[in-house]
Amino acid sequence: MKKILLATSALVATAGVAAADVDVSGTARMGLVYTSNPVGAAKKVQFENRVRIWFNASGETDGGLGWGAKVRIQRNNQGGGAVNNNAVWISGGWGKLTFGDVDSGDKAIVGQIAGVGYTGLGDLNEVVYKADNPAAALYEYSAGGFKAALSSSAPTNNTSYGIGLGYEADNWSIAIGYGDDSFFQEVTVKGSVTFGDTTLTAVYQDDDFWADDYAGLSVEHSFGATDVTAFYADFHGTDRFGIGASYDMGGGATLAGGVARNDAGTGTTVADLGIKFSF
Amino acid sequence: MKKILLATSALVATAGVAAADVDVSGTARMGLVYTSNPVGAAKKVQFENRVRIWFNASGETDGGLGWGAKVRIQRNNQGGGAVNNNAVWISGGWGKLTFGDVDSGDKAIVGQIAGVGYTGLGDLNEVVYKADNPAAALYEYSAGGFKAALSSSAPTNNTSYGIGLGYEADNWSIAIGYGDDSFFQEVTVKGSVTFGDTTLTAVYQDDDFWADDYAGLSVEHSFGATDVTAFYADFHGTDRFGIGASYDMGGGATLAGGVARNDAGTGTTVADLGIKFSF
Amino acid sequence: MKKILLATSALVATAGVAAADVDVSGTARMGLVYTSNPVGAAKKVQFENRVRIWFNASGETDGGLGWGAKVRIQRNNQGGGAVNNNAVWISGGWGKLTFGDVDSGDKAIVGQIAGVGYTGLGDLNEVVYKADNPAAALYEYSAGGFKAALSSSAPTNNTSYGIGLGYEADNWSIAIGYGDDSFFQEVTVKGSVTFGDTTLTAVYQDDDFWADDYAGLSVEHSFGATDVTAFYADFHGTDRFGIGASYDMGGGATLAGGVARNDAGTGTTVADLGIKFSF
Repeated sequence: MKKILLATSALVATAGVAAADVDVSGTARMGLVYTSNPVGAAKKVQFENRVRIWFNASGETDGGLGWGAKVRIQRNNQGGGAVNNNAVWISGGWGKLTFGDVDSGDKAIVGQIAGVGYTGLGDLNEVVYKADNPAAALYEYSAGGFKAALSSSAPTNNTSYGIGLGYEADNWSIAIGYGDDSFFQEVTVKGSVTFGDTTLTAVYQDDDFWADDYAGLSVEHSFGATDVTAFYADFHGTDRFGIGASYDMGGGATLAGGVARNDAGTGTTVADLGIKFSF
Repeated sequence: MKKILLATSALVATAGVAAADVDVSGTARMGLVYTSNPVGAAKKVQFENRVRIWFNASGETDGGLGWGAKVRIQRNNQGGGAVNNNAVWISGGWGKLTFGDVDSGDKAIVGQIAGVGYTGLGDLNEVVYKADNPAAALYEYSAGGFKAALSSSAPTNNTSYGIGLGYEADNWSIAIGYGDDSFFQEVTVKGSVTFGDTTLTAVYQDDDFWADDYAGLSVEHSFGATDVTAFYADFHGTDRFGIGASYDMGGGATLAGGVARNDAGTGTTVADLGIKFSF
Repeated sequence: MKKILLATSALVATAGVAAADVDVSGTARMGLVYTSNPVGAAKKVQFENRVRIWFNASGETDGGLGWGAKVRIQRNNQGGGAVNNNAVWISGGWGKLTFGDVDSGDKAIVGQIAGVGYTGLGDLNEVVYKADNPAAALYEYSAGGFKAALSSSAPTNNTSYGIGLGYEADNWSIAIGYGDDSFFQEVTVKGSVTFGDTTLTAVYQDDDFWADDYAGLSVEHSFGATDVTAFYADFHGTDRFGIGASYDMGGGATLAGGVARNDAGTGTTVADLGIKFSF
């Protein structure tokens, strides 16, 4: 849960200065991870943990322009401390413009099929968006169920860019995206449909860097506090698949685990079981 | 705006323990930056953003000695995450003594002529203080309009040190500083005068490392929520100049931009336009 | 003092979501440190400072399982910024299980004799626990004055592990620990006794990597707000000893200093004097 410092900032508000709200929130996780092909002398089963703390600020100008900023600290296991994932944005009825660690326009709208495991298990479910990593600016607009986004790596020509368009109804959605990293181009489409407590999601990508396309399908089913998820992806000619479940323990804690397989080379099986916390 | 956790800490104050206040505050910015001479394959125009979060604590001993500590996290664009700018201090009627990332004594008192741009545009307006980077301890004292500061890189001999003396009246100020990095010495002076909504500031530095001296002049004019600034500096024989403006949008946001030129070599022109946020 | 955001989070609690408390707390210090054998061109006496900010979150599941997470930012002097010391845990009547930057089981229970100085002066008082650095998981249990802990570097065989057992009465305590880094094994024991305002603590370690054992003794005496500490350690054949004092200034500040000597090689004497802050 986010802790918004409204009460405290109101107490010390300087006359004539509008207070910008600050949230301090975070996520944490702990559990066991398994891989059938550990690197070097690493063991097949490892203890794993991670803590992330988010700092979010937002405000509004006298003219009604919304703005916000965020940055994160994180550390994994016994290493990997970092300050990362910063972004600054302005927003209004015309949409939202964000600079920083942003998704590409196609990724922001189209996204991924569902993944499994309390760690994500290497994101084997995911398709790669070429325009994502260099994306530095993202414009987003939504009206009703319609959503659109456009990203760019730089404000000049010969840049990476991505564009996405989507529509969400109550129990189905469709989206299409185009990405260009100035060397290769790709088109990604997604469709999802929900009937009752079950959601099917499919993603397809045609990228001219790869000989084969990507196609992925996930199914999610929830009953009470439990969610079960399975996915299959043909990752440009390589089979990847997984199954997992999660249980909402209440109080910000979720028990989750999964197993997934990547058939690349001799094949690698990964699995995890742990608890995720949100605060 | 700073959010001081007075109310919350009071709620959980342990009997007999004096509460130290903690502030969480920050700054952010987003905009476009231009350079006529980009490095390598970089583009002339770039998206730019930065988020900084400050943590400040302060307290007072039973004997009335004030103390404080601060540290910052920041991240620029899609990289450069850091934990930096820490300082710890004690203070009282005798002044303030700070250890950590401090200014040199001459820089702390004399400072700089005004700069331009929402990013500062490479600080082309600034003179270099030799004793600044290695400064590890700073003593400051003020009484009425009189201010003095002394810095040192280490508490022993053969160290870098800087000293500054200044006086501020309602609409004018003067300051002089001396810096020694144990190799070269420099004297820096500043004068400023304000008439109505206009402020003129001049800085002059004689440093025996350079054949030529530094001389800089800035003029700042404000009308309503808008400030306009221009500067010219003879940076030890090289012309540097710039002009910029800023507009207070309210709610912690300031729209700012500028253009500046460094005549070194074939010359470089830089410019920016963006929004700065304070919270 | 820790600032718990109870009031603020209660104000914005989303219906149906249990609030996880977040603490923001920290420590800072500033002072002078001396070494008789500085490295390279470094000076014998230096300014020193450090700021650490802790982020702690905790909660409880609907089923009554306690959980928590923590991470820290810190920076020393004019460098060394880091995000470190993360840990995530679950707890209940059965004990506490922590993953992350944990102590080894023997270190967690047995610990160290008392050290001196506001910086710890290189921890010359301390014995080394072989299973500590690679420890990734720690289980702790206590009942009455009885305490036990078990650590492991990985959940499989051929790992480092440590185990500790201790008992604490009102004015005495005993503890024993065993550590194994899969190459060498060690047994460490500690006993302490308090009579009036004086505490004696002794630690002994037999480690088959070293030809000689470790034996250490510390004495701490407090009168009013002042504590005086002295220690002597035979560090596997090398004499190490020190003496120091600290004075509680109130308001979260403690004045402390010490001097210690390591007889290794030609011998090194270290000393410090400074103020520590807690908030």
